[in-house]
Amino acid sequence: MKQKHCDSITTDYERIFHPEKIAIIGVSAEEGNTGFGRGIFDAIKTIGFAGEIFLVNPKGGKIGDYVIHKQVGNIPEKLDFAIIAVAARLVPEVLEACLEKGAAGAEIISSGFSELGTTEGKDLEKKIQEIAARGIRVIGPNCFGIYCPKSGLTLLPGPDLSRQSGPVAFLSQSGGMSIDFAHTGKWMGIRFSKVISFGNGADLRETELLHYLASDPETRVIAMYIEGIKNGDAFFRAIKEAARIKPVVIYKGGLSLAGQRAVVSHTASLGGSRTIWQSILNQVNACQVQDMTEMAQSCLAFSLLPAKEFRKISVIGGGGALGVTACDTAENFGIEIPPLSAALQAKIEAFLPQPGSSAKNPIDVANPYVRPRALQEVLRLAAQDEQIELQIIIPLLYHYKPLAEARGKSVAEITPYKELAFAIHDIVKETGKPVIAVMPNPKKGADDLDILEMLALARKEFLERGIPVFDEISDAVRALGNVNTYYRKEGFGK
Amino acid sequence: MKQKHCDSITTDYERIFHPEKIAIIGVSAEEGNTGFGRGIFDAIKTIGFAGEIFLVNPKGGKIGDYVIHKQVGNIPEKLDFAIIAVAARLVPEVLEACLEKGAAGAEIISSGFSELGTTEGKDLEKKIQEIAARGIRVIGPNCFGIYCPKSGLTLLPGPDLSRQSGPVAFLSQSGGMSIDFAHTGKWMGIRFSKVISFGNGADLRETELLHYLASDPETRVIAMYIEGIKNGDAFFRAIKEAARIKPVVIYKGGLSLAGQRAVVSHTASLGGSRTIWQSILNQVNACQVQDMTEMAQSCLAFSLLPAKEFRKISVIGGGGALGVTACDTAENFGIEIPPLSAALQAKIEAFLPQPGSSAKNPIDVANPYVRPRALQEVLRLAAQDEQIELQIIIPLLYHYKPLAEARGKSVAEITPYKELAFAIHDIVKETGKPVIAVMPNPKKGADDLDILEMLALARKEFLERGIPVFDEISDAVRALGNVNTYYRKEGFGK
Repeated sequence: MKQKHCDSITTDYERIFHPEKIAIIGVSAEEGNTGFGRGIFDAIKTIGFAGEIFLVNPKGGKIGDYVIHKQVGNIPEKLDFAIIAVAARLVPEVLEACLEKGAAGAEIISSGFSELGTTEGKDLEKKIQEIAARGIRVIGPNCFGIYCPKSGLTLLPGPDLSRQSGPVAFLSQSGGMSIDFAHTGKWMGIRFSKVISFGNGADLRETELLHYLASDPETRVIAMYIEGIKNGDAFFRAIKEAARIKPVVIYKGGLSLAGQRAVVSHTASLGGSRTIWQSILNQVNACQVQDMTEMAQSCLAFSLLPAKEFRKISVIGGGGALGVTACDTAENFGIEIPPLSAALQAKIEAFLPQPGSSAKNPIDVANPYVRPRALQEVLRLAAQDEQIELQIIIPLLYHYKPLAEARGKSVAEITPYKELAFAIHDIVKETGKPVIAVMPNPKKGADDLDILEMLALARKEFLERGIPVFDEISDAVRALGNVNTYYRKEGFGK
Repeated sequence: MKQKHCDSITTDYERIFHPEKIAIIGVSAEEGNTGFGRGIFDAIKTIGFAGEIFLVNPKGGKIGDYVIHKQVGNIPEKLDFAIIAVAARLVPEVLEACLEKGAAGAEIISSGFSELGTTEGKDLEKKIQEIAARGIRVIGPNCFGIYCPKSGLTLLPGPDLSRQSGPVAFLSQSGGMSIDFAHTGKWMGIRFSKVISFGNGADLRETELLHYLASDPETRVIAMYIEGIKNGDAFFRAIKEAARIKPVVIYKGGLSLAGQRAVVSHTASLGGSRTIWQSILNQVNACQVQDMTEMAQSCLAFSLLPAKEFRKISVIGGGGALGVTACDTAENFGIEIPPLSAALQAKIEAFLPQPGSSAKNPIDVANPYVRPRALQEVLRLAAQDEQIELQIIIPLLYHYKPLAEARGKSVAEITPYKELAFAIHDIVKETGKPVIAVMPNPKKGADDLDILEMLALARKEFLERGIPVFDEISDAVRALGNVNTYYRKEGFGK
């Protein structure tokens, strides 16, 4: 996709995110080198980038079959994209050479620019901006770069990220947050269209990238971590426009006084007042989250649930206190857990152990060993109540550990998580009402790693069937609350 | 410790929590029996209860070397405590027999009483109360019983709980919550004096147990999960009295309308209004928490930190965005992260890698591989600033995984968590200022179980040296906020 830049040049995002020929500049051939250039080359090879990679270093040399060119000019072909990891003072010259080689964009991993607060750093960054304006779009400097699972570009420390593409895009001013969020997404089940760590944002940054992602057909959900912004008005217009089309989840760091001090942004940033941000984000119907965890959980819900509001839900399993917690949390987010009709309650009771269970809603199955087939019947019956728009099931799978020990088997072997995933998947297809799984676990010590393993495997099975999984009922309800707030407003995300 | 009951009889809590002779009534000798009686007998043997155990079942028989008596009356000795797991209708008769055998108390695991809402159930519970009033104190019915690490009494499904005793007592109306909290405490580092699941609370319940725990020398922190209470005035007077002496952490379930419906309490319970609870608990300086996680984290902080308020703290490690999150969260809880003096900043800089680090506070070490010795120097220097009352260190230990892979070793082998625990321990002793460790981990998938293992081992090392560990900076700061709120008021917990 090509887009206009500053009404003058066109940005070829296609060649930036899915390049066929890339150069990595600043890769050392030395044995055991741990520089950024070598790090990103190893990461990109490990993750399996399919295009052609050219390496550059004034010292030349070879890494395996890869010849290291002494200058960018020596690369025998035109470039689509460049990854720059040389000392700050050398960056302008290298960027210029990449422009000449036809690169549509470059990410500058190097630091030592405006973030230092020095005149030299600021001047170097200005030079980058001047070169960028002549036709090479820049991500960075002082960033971790681009992760695009489809093409195999990855972040600086990201050799082990997922190659599965998905609907969530993430923009981050912080490199640490970009890699942490990409890793969190991997196990939590968030699949990314692209993750962009833009660091100082000398050229491409929040507003323009948001415009791009709003119209990117690979992206259905946009998440952002921002500390300081450059042009408040333009940014909020961009959010407003994007949020009309798809959910925009925003984690704004530095809303406290101390936080603002910790944000070394050196940008003309909109004052970090909590109230201002809250009211503006509210106006444009963006989803403001309080931390990375809430951001991840909200992205998971937005990406796996149908695009609508779910006001009334059923909650199945878990036991008495978890049902109480579910109700308390749901009320906080305007979600109802209404009693099911008496007729349905009677039918559900037939599948529950007696005494101690309750078929009201929350439905307390009173026993962690109720078979998946019986739970499936309960889900099927509860879905027959017309009020119910979504179901939450809380299987307490960790209870299988003592059973496994008694039978001399592993917890993963004995726990029926696969059957449960299949059973839920069938019910979702049959009833058209989504199901969320909540799998809490109070046993996380060194003695209980087998439970953690089983739960990680269970999560995979559920996610492969499109069933979102959360650790705690309050996490699931909060994420659902964010989904509801977005779709409640007329004309959003449609 | 003996205490007066209803101004008439004396309760011998010592014989209830640390009994020498107990009976378990309702234990089946059948092979493969999974009844409650057998379950609790197995659990108590596994955990290693040191006293004498007598078994009772009308069918008689033997389990290993244990003879099963046909009636309580046949037990050849006086009892201290009884565990009753027979059908509801048989409970009164059995309880009466235990009273005759001299038992100071009994826990009734069986359900089928007032929680059913039937006349029969209510009548049976009334009978229990009548017998209890004649001198045997009752825990339950419809509960998981008592866990007392010192004596080796344990909850119904608790064979694998810790035998380490500690300062936290937990009272819970919900059995599920009692066992989940005990397990959570095990890996999180909460050590218990006693955990009491009191279920329907026919006899001993919130108010009287609170009185007992307030004066129990083994208990320094009291936590409670309550759904409905019996006598509002007496309960709040009991909290007020207890909170003067030691922190009382309260998780009240069922504050929502739906939650109240989910609470099948059948007790004359104080209306669940959120506002009323909040304002009363506030008045008596109890610490109200919103879920089990916050309750656990607060108990950890209360039990491992010195009894005082910590208004100004330093935050070390983690990287830019985590520092920003720390500041934002701290402000929410009235905690300051003030800049260190310029002189100290200069000294700290000498131990930090350049560029990218910051010695201001939050101190960004910019590199996850900074050695424990260097981190120790940073902690030592930051503590020299007189404003600083507590330090939070955020080692990003999961970053050692790629290094371990490169060196062909396990993550646990290569990560210097032991050195770090020793280094921090020394600094706490030297400076007298507590240190909290925060160890986040974005890698929790099936591919990264080795990281989870390493972190579980690291947590153990830290906890063994009295250093509280949290997963997220926001968790640590929230728990600290609760500690501060309690000790801020004059004359509490002293």
